[in-house]
Amino acid sequence: MAEFTFAPLTPASFLDRSAAVFADRTAIVDGERRFTYRDMSERCRRLAGALAAAGAGHEDRVAALCANSHVMLELHHAVPMMGAALVTLNTRLSDDEMAALLDHSGSSVLVATHEFADRARRLAGGLNLPCFIAGGSGDSYEPWLASADPAGPVPARVDERQLLAINYTSGTTGRPKGVMYHHRGAYLQATAMAYHARLGPGARYLWTLPMFHCNGWCFTWAVTAAGGTHVCLRAIDTAEIWRLLRSEGITHFSAAPTVLTMIAEDAAAAPLDREVHVDTGGAPPSATLLARLEQMRFAVTHLYGLTETYGPLAINEWQPEWNSLEPAEQATLRARQGAPNIIARPLRVLDENGRDVPADGETIGEIAVSGNDVMLGYYRDEEATREVTRSGCLLTGDLAVRHPDGYVEIRDRSKDIIISGGENIASVEVERVLDSHPAVVESAVVGVPDERWGEVPVAFVTLRRDDIDAGALTEYARERLARYKIPKRFEFCELPKTSTGKIQKNVLRDRANELKLKAPGAQA
Amino acid sequence: MAEFTFAPLTPASFLDRSAAVFADRTAIVDGERRFTYRDMSERCRRLAGALAAAGAGHEDRVAALCANSHVMLELHHAVPMMGAALVTLNTRLSDDEMAALLDHSGSSVLVATHEFADRARRLAGGLNLPCFIAGGSGDSYEPWLASADPAGPVPARVDERQLLAINYTSGTTGRPKGVMYHHRGAYLQATAMAYHARLGPGARYLWTLPMFHCNGWCFTWAVTAAGGTHVCLRAIDTAEIWRLLRSEGITHFSAAPTVLTMIAEDAAAAPLDREVHVDTGGAPPSATLLARLEQMRFAVTHLYGLTETYGPLAINEWQPEWNSLEPAEQATLRARQGAPNIIARPLRVLDENGRDVPADGETIGEIAVSGNDVMLGYYRDEEATREVTRSGCLLTGDLAVRHPDGYVEIRDRSKDIIISGGENIASVEVERVLDSHPAVVESAVVGVPDERWGEVPVAFVTLRRDDIDAGALTEYARERLARYKIPKRFEFCELPKTSTGKIQKNVLRDRANELKLKAPGAQA
Repeated sequence: MAEFTFAPLTPASFLDRSAAVFADRTAIVDGERRFTYRDMSERCRRLAGALAAAGAGHEDRVAALCANSHVMLELHHAVPMMGAALVTLNTRLSDDEMAALLDHSGSSVLVATHEFADRARRLAGGLNLPCFIAGGSGDSYEPWLASADPAGPVPARVDERQLLAINYTSGTTGRPKGVMYHHRGAYLQATAMAYHARLGPGARYLWTLPMFHCNGWCFTWAVTAAGGTHVCLRAIDTAEIWRLLRSEGITHFSAAPTVLTMIAEDAAAAPLDREVHVDTGGAPPSATLLARLEQMRFAVTHLYGLTETYGPLAINEWQPEWNSLEPAEQATLRARQGAPNIIARPLRVLDENGRDVPADGETIGEIAVSGNDVMLGYYRDEEATREVTRSGCLLTGDLAVRHPDGYVEIRDRSKDIIISGGENIASVEVERVLDSHPAVVESAVVGVPDERWGEVPVAFVTLRRDDIDAGALTEYARERLARYKIPKRFEFCELPKTSTGKIQKNVLRDRANELKLKAPGAQA
Repeated sequence: MAEFTFAPLTPASFLDRSAAVFADRTAIVDGERRFTYRDMSERCRRLAGALAAAGAGHEDRVAALCANSHVMLELHHAVPMMGAALVTLNTRLSDDEMAALLDHSGSSVLVATHEFADRARRLAGGLNLPCFIAGGSGDSYEPWLASADPAGPVPARVDERQLLAINYTSGTTGRPKGVMYHHRGAYLQATAMAYHARLGPGARYLWTLPMFHCNGWCFTWAVTAAGGTHVCLRAIDTAEIWRLLRSEGITHFSAAPTVLTMIAEDAAAAPLDREVHVDTGGAPPSATLLARLEQMRFAVTHLYGLTETYGPLAINEWQPEWNSLEPAEQATLRARQGAPNIIARPLRVLDENGRDVPADGETIGEIAVSGNDVMLGYYRDEEATREVTRSGCLLTGDLAVRHPDGYVEIRDRSKDIIISGGENIASVEVERVLDSHPAVVESAVVGVPDERWGEVPVAFVTLRRDDIDAGALTEYARERLARYKIPKRFEFCELPKTSTGKIQKNVLRDRANELKLKAPGAQA
């Protein structure tokens, strides 16, 4: 085997290429600061050197408590460059939760942006970790970089299957699990994202998605690979999103449907002068939402994945012929989670015996995945890894059908299925009907224990206007759903969400149980 | 390491995905025949089974003597599927040359399309090989497929670094060398081509490029990966190209500048109703040609590579800001070979001591490459492999400069450099000047031995009109080139070309030497 024929697949290589090819192009916009690819490359080399000087070596863990920022992007490129592993903390966790993750990951240094300076100092102090704060009055990041060797450390010899990042799941229950990514997986996933999103050197990607979430679906590396521009957004602020969409000529962004709803409902919402490629995931976008987004010239692609799959493993591949269908039909097709992305293996849907369900659009099974964009396992938790493994696949916990055309459609999370009088109710099916009502912004349906039926569905609904009540929505649902699927109670309120915009059904379940103790009919 | 986290990178996986996701989309158009992805997948499985039944096992070689056709595409997918290696014969070779390659490769079966039926039967008879002919009156391919198991053989367990294909170089001198591709390299290269060409399920790719040449730059797999449509073209026929461009709604094709010139000069040439993505390589497109192509709505990307690099390893990445430059300046930028493609490693330019030349746009060195899209070596020829290896790289034989922005520009093939009076003359520089004359279709400049100067340049020129002579061209060149670079003689003629459209300078060199024996001034 000739020596010239192999290079390890690592996302660290993308910055090398873009620094060589696109040196003078803007790599990062972060508020007032702008960095070219030359700047970014030099800063990342310095950061790699600084990390090494701070005691983080090959295969060590480097923790980040960062807003979407140039700092977080620098960490995403510098840490792989030196063969260390990046641990990105969900910024919404409590001090105790963060301390537990820093401890579990065995992180040897903590880098934070100024928004989280106090917490970072507290955490680092308690664990006796070196800590660097970027920005704000107590900035220690820039002097640290300035003091480092601009050439960085000697490049690490990376094994493409070595640990690249640990992404702790924001799992709503149980102990957090550290999802392990490797270089090869992130490299291929970044390539797939660049392909499907049609990135290129002209791409201007707005960071509405948290970078700490699945490393931003690997767009942290994909945008760099394309030589596009990362436009940072440090916190979700829809007015600011609209300002940046216009002033920065944004061409791409990614967000959960709940965030898209907020964007579409913002006072500044108005059609743009160009088409913007929008990737969404976490839940299917409703027909109502899609119609509103189309008016703004957002071209929406529906993706599906888990933290365990580097973000989107599946894509709702849109087939040109579907453009001629009716909007409602298009929305139905677009709600499906779809097909493997270009580097992913086929999604399987397994029954309880580990056999593939027929592609009949009816038989429900659990989505099971495998391949290069599936995690190495849970960090230091072989038991949890074993629990999700079956038939050589990773079980996702998502219940779905396979359509005759091969596309997969989720019927529910296994834990979100409501079993009422022996019938399975897919909460998403009920939600889709409620969301299609013009007065509804969004909804979430959960099951609550019921003596007679086992469980009954309860709906939490955010309204666009207040001329509608539970009776009208019940009537609306009755025309469209089987009787047993009709929510037995409606609560009108804002919906609680995770940092990635996912609706927290566990919170709603608790709330529904509390309400159940009150007199029936006592609606909010 | 959990079992669910790894899949070998193989181009065989792309058809599996497209058959699942795009089953009813048209995969192949070949004359009157059309095949969906479902058809293609089933036929490829049958072909894999049929090959196995004919005695071609894991790691065996399967030879193809085929026009661009559904048959050739089926071989490109079925052979990797079974873990065998594909040997694609250049259809322009002589019987003796082909026999030598069949023997050298140790091929165990030969598949040919009807255009080459007689030759295939002769060759197979001489070597005692099983032979199948597709199409025509003596078709044996369809019955062979029909008799095979539609499920195909048990899928081979492929090692991603195992032999996928042998591409014999159409090298103009010396013994042919069998360039070895592996699965991993072709997979990554196909992904890169899909990304850079912005393929997608709506892509309709016209096969102007021979599929036997670098496996069609890996577009044989890239178009399949995207779920696009392969539109076959069995022989270069510019009228047919224009017919298909219109009737098949072609969105993409690839061709050498010489073929693009033929297309642009065709009587049917006229602007299309959509933009067509055109990849070109083999030589830089001239400003004149680019201007003509733009009128037809061909958006041209200049790529660079070798048989040894799976086709295009480099791409002239077009930066959005360059759109505002003058056409002449744009053409100068577009003539550069450019930068590594998204999965390629940086191109190096080495001096005689194996050191990188400075990025000054002046110092000439030899392009040297390495990485996943560089061949495994020459088949059964370690000596030839060693000869092209230096500093852990593969030497390309192309002499180039590195510009300050990192882009590489070829000044000449090392063997095409003309040394006159101790000065180096890059033949491409002279050709570029001649090509910029409105009366010139194309030109080629070679060196001929000269007693006084060592060598002197001689130009072979194809004219668009005949109101120009050697004197006028000499005058034109004098205003633009140093005196020693001016061709000492002009010959007006059609230029001899290889099957991939490259001008055969060795033929011209022989012709120039013959002419030299005649009296000076005796012009054609």
